[in-house]
Amino acid sequence: MNAELIIIVMAILSIVTAIFYASRVVRIKVGAEGGNVEQNNRLNQIASAIAEGAMAFLLREYRVILLFIGFMTILIFLLLDNPKTDFNEGLYTAVAFISGALISCLSGFIGMKIATAGNVRTAQAAKTSLSAAFRVAYDSGAVMGFGLIGLAVLGLIGLFMAFVGLNTGVEKHILMESLAGFGLGGSSVALFGRVGGGIYTKAADVGADLVGKVEKGIPEDDPRNPATIADNVGDNVGDIAGMGADLFGSAAEATCAALVIGATASALADNSAALLYPLLISAVGIPASLITSFFARVKENGNVESALKLQLWISTVLVAIALYFVTDIFMVDSFQIAEQTITKWNVYISVALGLFAGMFIGWITEIFTSHSYKPVREVADACETGAATNIIYGLALGYKSSVIPVVLLVIVIVVSNIIAGMYGIAVAAIGMISTIAIGLTIDAYGPVSDNAGGIAEMAELGKEVRDRTDNLDAAGNTTAAVGKGFAIGSAALTSLALFAAFITRTQATSKSLGEGAIDLTSIELLDPWVFGGLLFGAMLPFIFSAMTMKSVGKAALDMVKEVRRQFKEIPGLMEGKAKPEYAKCVDISTSAALREMIPPGMLVLLSPIVVGYLFGVKSLAGLLAGALVSGVVLAISMANSGGAWDNAKKYIEKTAGGKGSDKHKAAVVGDTVGDPFKDTSGPSINILIKLMAITSLVFAEFFVLKGGVLLSLFK
Amino acid sequence: MNAELIIIVMAILSIVTAIFYASRVVRIKVGAEGGNVEQNNRLNQIASAIAEGAMAFLLREYRVILLFIGFMTILIFLLLDNPKTDFNEGLYTAVAFISGALISCLSGFIGMKIATAGNVRTAQAAKTSLSAAFRVAYDSGAVMGFGLIGLAVLGLIGLFMAFVGLNTGVEKHILMESLAGFGLGGSSVALFGRVGGGIYTKAADVGADLVGKVEKGIPEDDPRNPATIADNVGDNVGDIAGMGADLFGSAAEATCAALVIGATASALADNSAALLYPLLISAVGIPASLITSFFARVKENGNVESALKLQLWISTVLVAIALYFVTDIFMVDSFQIAEQTITKWNVYISVALGLFAGMFIGWITEIFTSHSYKPVREVADACETGAATNIIYGLALGYKSSVIPVVLLVIVIVVSNIIAGMYGIAVAAIGMISTIAIGLTIDAYGPVSDNAGGIAEMAELGKEVRDRTDNLDAAGNTTAAVGKGFAIGSAALTSLALFAAFITRTQATSKSLGEGAIDLTSIELLDPWVFGGLLFGAMLPFIFSAMTMKSVGKAALDMVKEVRRQFKEIPGLMEGKAKPEYAKCVDISTSAALREMIPPGMLVLLSPIVVGYLFGVKSLAGLLAGALVSGVVLAISMANSGGAWDNAKKYIEKTAGGKGSDKHKAAVVGDTVGDPFKDTSGPSINILIKLMAITSLVFAEFFVLKGGVLLSLFK
Repeated sequence: MNAELIIIVMAILSIVTAIFYASRVVRIKVGAEGGNVEQNNRLNQIASAIAEGAMAFLLREYRVILLFIGFMTILIFLLLDNPKTDFNEGLYTAVAFISGALISCLSGFIGMKIATAGNVRTAQAAKTSLSAAFRVAYDSGAVMGFGLIGLAVLGLIGLFMAFVGLNTGVEKHILMESLAGFGLGGSSVALFGRVGGGIYTKAADVGADLVGKVEKGIPEDDPRNPATIADNVGDNVGDIAGMGADLFGSAAEATCAALVIGATASALADNSAALLYPLLISAVGIPASLITSFFARVKENGNVESALKLQLWISTVLVAIALYFVTDIFMVDSFQIAEQTITKWNVYISVALGLFAGMFIGWITEIFTSHSYKPVREVADACETGAATNIIYGLALGYKSSVIPVVLLVIVIVVSNIIAGMYGIAVAAIGMISTIAIGLTIDAYGPVSDNAGGIAEMAELGKEVRDRTDNLDAAGNTTAAVGKGFAIGSAALTSLALFAAFITRTQATSKSLGEGAIDLTSIELLDPWVFGGLLFGAMLPFIFSAMTMKSVGKAALDMVKEVRRQFKEIPGLMEGKAKPEYAKCVDISTSAALREMIPPGMLVLLSPIVVGYLFGVKSLAGLLAGALVSGVVLAISMANSGGAWDNAKKYIEKTAGGKGSDKHKAAVVGDTVGDPFKDTSGPSINILIKLMAITSLVFAEFFVLKGGVLLSLFK
Repeated sequence: MNAELIIIVMAILSIVTAIFYASRVVRIKVGAEGGNVEQNNRLNQIASAIAEGAMAFLLREYRVILLFIGFMTILIFLLLDNPKTDFNEGLYTAVAFISGALISCLSGFIGMKIATAGNVRTAQAAKTSLSAAFRVAYDSGAVMGFGLIGLAVLGLIGLFMAFVGLNTGVEKHILMESLAGFGLGGSSVALFGRVGGGIYTKAADVGADLVGKVEKGIPEDDPRNPATIADNVGDNVGDIAGMGADLFGSAAEATCAALVIGATASALADNSAALLYPLLISAVGIPASLITSFFARVKENGNVESALKLQLWISTVLVAIALYFVTDIFMVDSFQIAEQTITKWNVYISVALGLFAGMFIGWITEIFTSHSYKPVREVADACETGAATNIIYGLALGYKSSVIPVVLLVIVIVVSNIIAGMYGIAVAAIGMISTIAIGLTIDAYGPVSDNAGGIAEMAELGKEVRDRTDNLDAAGNTTAAVGKGFAIGSAALTSLALFAAFITRTQATSKSLGEGAIDLTSIELLDPWVFGGLLFGAMLPFIFSAMTMKSVGKAALDMVKEVRRQFKEIPGLMEGKAKPEYAKCVDISTSAALREMIPPGMLVLLSPIVVGYLFGVKSLAGLLAGALVSGVVLAISMANSGGAWDNAKKYIEKTAGGKGSDKHKAAVVGDTVGDPFKDTSGPSINILIKLMAITSLVFAEFFVLKGGVLLSLFK
């Protein structure tokens, strides 16, 4: 069978599925479920305010990204131009880079469009039944899930075929190195999506809460709150566009890393089906996810959370089974990389390890962030003695929650590396996100439901409707935490795979230079340049988090001032007689996010380039390893502390105490601290570690040829 | 000149100095400054309650430590018994271990005795003048400073001479490896001192504040608060015994690491003056510190903080100058370690780098934790919008504050390693704490002043006296932050030096085993066992912090319950007509601290032993490196966040807002979170990274010979 063809067919299947689900959502007319004209008008007004706000942000963000793409393209041309070879690596890498960036933007755009159409339709469907509302929200999410992976796979296979077809004389591993530009493109967009989106969403959320809930005592999503539209826009910006770009990056980068490493094995380089195995993993995930999506249903009064979690399990098992056959058919029986013999079953086990480790990491995340279990309840109890003990317990919970995920990652790293070398780690990373279509569907389902609740509140659809959307939303919160676990785990494996590809490539380059070149055959832990890099790298996630946390703080402060101003200056606002100026708040979040994302973005992009240029490959290797290990732990901790605080608050609202009690006030402090933790700083670290690694990989040759200019001072 | 003789003389000089200062303090009679009989009686009562509480804790803690020493001694005998050699390494290491542990305990005991005598005398002297009170507090601190380093140096030189004298036929580097047991002993006591002491002090502090200040609205140190004596005992337990044991450990370990590495150079092994150079550095620090102490004076209305900081600068400059001559006289012109030629000036530059880097790290720490500068004021401003923004800004400040210290450490590591190999890093670590006599004097000055304030309040000595002690205390807070910077910096360099000594030793052992032994000549960063260890190690400081933070929380909760009970059950307590049961609170803190220190202690001790035994030297090397790099950043962050919250609160008290305002309430939340950060979890990480490294060093041979039992599964 032709692997290319299968991959293309599956990619198209994925895109068709996305179109199918999109049409199901869009077909629903707002106002179809009855309700008076006034209510339907209000629904339409609110929904379009959110949609417009989301689009306004996205378009302004894309403008910044476009500028950035231009800048990076020039940099790629300049730094990767190697006149000694016939193959114009700069050109091909730039093409791959631009493709990756544009396809990621397109996926984000589609996801946002459909999510902002799905939210109001979910709210409306909730007038009828829970199961109907669930299905609309799920369908909206599925557009993002299937659309994104379909486009990613199609882009990658298209570039692969073009690169190979146009350069029959060039060695495969060189072509794959250029293809890595695709991952860099995807990851660059993710930087802006995650960081900018993360700042946007939390600035709006915190700003809305601080004035609305705390100062004015009005409920969440109250239409009198000027920041409420911005808050709802933020959910989409952060959890749809940001999360999508993040996972797009992981998928693209892990695939590129596996292709780069795989191409160094002659048995794979000469057999395009086997070489394309990394793409086949993603391709297999598509029909498996499609079948899984048929099982997505919830009965009235059914358990939404179980339904969503079942989705993950079904798709995981299906992928594991299908992949067994795909591996048997397409993978060569055994191949050699760096003197290690790797059989196809070693490869399969590595993929399966990644796949199931992801599930377990998700499960552990749930235990530490859901209030059904002891850890969160302990945090809730700590609110008894005030906000300070709540913070202490929540931070401790986050730190503690990193233990098992780290151990699981260590097992995957050690075992897959021993049985299948660095190729094993790369395919394990792809394995972990092979069910991405379902994973993203569930992730995107969250903000759609959240928005539906907000719209129901603002349009005053009544308590029953709100209860149904709350039910949907609560399940979304839990699965959001699980999704974050996946995202971090896959980021860790992806970065390590990219790191390995980077080392592989620098070693090859340095060897090809022969005598006089710096010896890179061994990256010694105790080499002062390596260790110095390691320590410096370990610090980067911390300063990066500091920057993003403070950015949220500053942006939220801007928002607080504007909301206070409106309550003061608009007569009758508090009484519900006048309308707030929603657009002003949307604008403030947008500007603040775009302004504040620049410094952390620069830190991520420039650190590897500056260190590689000034101190050379060894320091850069240390830096990547240091940032990776401390970043993974910090990211898991922040995400889980944030999730736990959020749910501890919800637990107190449900049980003893309730809103307004001292215990609840203490819980709100934790929740507010947790907001940037779980939605801005924590997830942004994923991007930090992946983007630094892929930047190093793409510019690897440059660092070997021209890097380390300051080393001569010590000679 | 005879190096041994000089070292012994200097050590004795240090001890004599300590005795001199002790006599100056003890000579002062309580009641000598007039005051009515009743007041003096009260002074005596309060002081002896604190002294008794402190001794009670110390003695119970030492009982646990004694058990532990017994257990470890057996372990050392069992694991280090190598029947193939004539030299009984287990015996000698055990002797060194017991000596190190006992001398550390003795130092802590002396420090506590004098601090609890000095506190009341400082309070009394404050009736006369600021300068008199300052001098008493300073003198009390100096007893600890000079006593501790004198005993440490004397112990080390004594063991050195005994080991060398008794085993003339045994190679020096083997003897030095046994001597490393001294460092392990010191560090083991530090584990209990720092962790147990840290939990004690903050349980008492947080417990006292939560009920006293927050619920009952009575001021700090109010005699009606049952936990107030425990709180004052805690200051001594944490900042005197804990800090002392920590720095004792650093000094002993860094010296041992330098001796182990130095002894591998034949030029040093054959020249005992040159071999003893690491001890000479500490010896030089003694007269330099003595001269510096003559300049310790403060005019009435003078600036206490400047006087203390001047102390650090004078001693630093004096040591730098004196060491120039000592290096010239005692160090050999050049020697070779691992094929690298190292001149004596390379060694001198390394020491100086460590010395001045310490000063700069202290200075940066001050900028991030003193409310004279922008960072803390920003945190104070963030209290405007509530406790949550205060927490976010404070955490971000901590993360950010790690950047420059990390960069300084990287510079020291890279430069000293390049010019003087791993020996350079070891002597840089000693250099950083060569002014330890002054450093510890200032550190111990802090809790003495703090206690003096508490005693003045409880004994109702009047506002003028309290103002003077507050003045002393405020300066102590700033220098405490500086001291923590030093402690972390030296811990980082010390661990790295120990780590290097560990690698040196395992390589030598593995080489001596010849064919068939595991090849340890290279510890590859990308080796899966190394990288797995690195990731696992990076997680350890986080879980360790989680454990210590929660321990404080739990212990504080016990305290809160007891204090609430007393206020409820003792009639007339709130009106000041009845006395609280101070001893019960002291007992609760003591029991809680001793109980809670066990799990984190086990984690630190068992992690390297278990990993080394199961997975071998390479994983252990990765683990040490991972814990070191993430631990350093986390420790700096936690200490500085805590310091900043504390001072942000003080800044608000001084300026707009004031006590009782909403802004102040928000600041109190930060301060309470910061308490375990800066006084328990943060400083405990120092011990984590040092103790794991020295444990690995001491058991290095065992790990090479018997370790890695699970590796065979993958063969």
